[in-house]
Amino acid sequence: MRYELYYWSSIQGRGEFVRLALEEASAPYVDVARTRDGEERMLALLDNEGLACPPFAPPFLRAGKRIIGQTANILLFLGNRHGLAPATEAGRLWTHQLQLTFADFLVEVHDTHHPIAAGLYYEEQRREAKRRSADFLANRVPKYFGYFERVLASNPGGPAHLAGARLSYADLSLFQVVAGMTYAFPKVTARFPRRYPHLMALHARVAKRPRIAAYLASERRIPFNQDGIFRHYAELDR
Amino acid sequence: MRYELYYWSSIQGRGEFVRLALEEASAPYVDVARTRDGEERMLALLDNEGLACPPFAPPFLRAGKRIIGQTANILLFLGNRHGLAPATEAGRLWTHQLQLTFADFLVEVHDTHHPIAAGLYYEEQRREAKRRSADFLANRVPKYFGYFERVLASNPGGPAHLAGARLSYADLSLFQVVAGMTYAFPKVTARFPRRYPHLMALHARVAKRPRIAAYLASERRIPFNQDGIFRHYAELDR
Repeated sequence: MRYELYYWSSIQGRGEFVRLALEEASAPYVDVARTRDGEERMLALLDNEGLACPPFAPPFLRAGKRIIGQTANILLFLGNRHGLAPATEAGRLWTHQLQLTFADFLVEVHDTHHPIAAGLYYEEQRREAKRRSADFLANRVPKYFGYFERVLASNPGGPAHLAGARLSYADLSLFQVVAGMTYAFPKVTARFPRRYPHLMALHARVAKRPRIAAYLASERRIPFNQDGIFRHYAELDR
Repeated sequence: MRYELYYWSSIQGRGEFVRLALEEASAPYVDVARTRDGEERMLALLDNEGLACPPFAPPFLRAGKRIIGQTANILLFLGNRHGLAPATEAGRLWTHQLQLTFADFLVEVHDTHHPIAAGLYYEEQRREAKRRSADFLANRVPKYFGYFERVLASNPGGPAHLAGARLSYADLSLFQVVAGMTYAFPKVTARFPRRYPHLMALHARVAKRPRIAAYLASERRIPFNQDGIFRHYAELDR
């Protein structure tokens, strides 16, 4: 069976967390919206009133007859099937818990440049974006990154992974979060290696995994850009 | 075994979604922070560097030796154990997917009154709150509520439930979301029964379930107030 991933064709966004899991698992998949007429097919599925389990928004994954939405939910599904989560129920819930905390963080990242409305341009909420970003960098990033550093430091399976002694989708997601922060806030993240050594080491290790490295070097990896969740506005980075 | 729920003692907040599930399941639990020295115990657990699986924030649930965090993750755990989710894996993932969409909605509700920073007072971000709330009510509420109405209308198990033909934790969460919106935005929600008939009917039915009705009438139900996620500011409600 070949998975179909439905996500916006021009950004990494939330879809990237699914792409990384599919790539590491070497699972056959089509990134539908990046194929001819793919985005129209995605929008048609979102509007399809005949679906028993309609997704609220991209990303969603078609696996055979099933359509699964919500990034963390897709990873819960893929993690169990492709060895990207611990084998025990407790380990799986813990990995999922970490993923949900990444999801919370992502909303906050998005709102640094869109604190008022996703439907307005950045320029229409620039003043508010500056205020929100200042609070985000001063208070929220240390809270989240300090937390994940602590999770690594206290992992009974060792500080090389977030959950257990093997790679999980949470590790892949941590890689993506660090990569995104490095793109969006290069000045602030320059201080991270000293503050969050385990976390930055895990980011570097994931980037070197053969399948991930091959993916990152391929055209399948959409570059970071100013339409995604992680955006670089120099005036917000301090 | 008696569960221990850890959440702030003075608000419904995210903890309320867990309380509703525990009450409907008639599961023995202690609302720890509402007992003597309970909030201190909660904060001590959050600061405890010795935990293998530390929660990022309340709510979290202690179940025997396990500590489980993230509201939707706690419900995933409880739903399976207490018959508050479908029996099939596909049904469980679908119920969880709906819960994650409620979680997304909740963040947006919170940010109507705190669009800049959770650490600032409402009065310090009142102008931004007005802008954000206007967009929330005009664009986001119709998107979310229209979606859940559609899920009910197209549920193969019938429009009386969100997932399958029996009550799930997603139905309880829908009740709570409608209750909160009715408190926070009474003017706007007055138009809901005509627009979202299935959704409002489900809210009314959940409120009448014997265990939920008994809970709502008890002192265990903390009233809505101006410290929670759902807050009523008349100037934001239009």
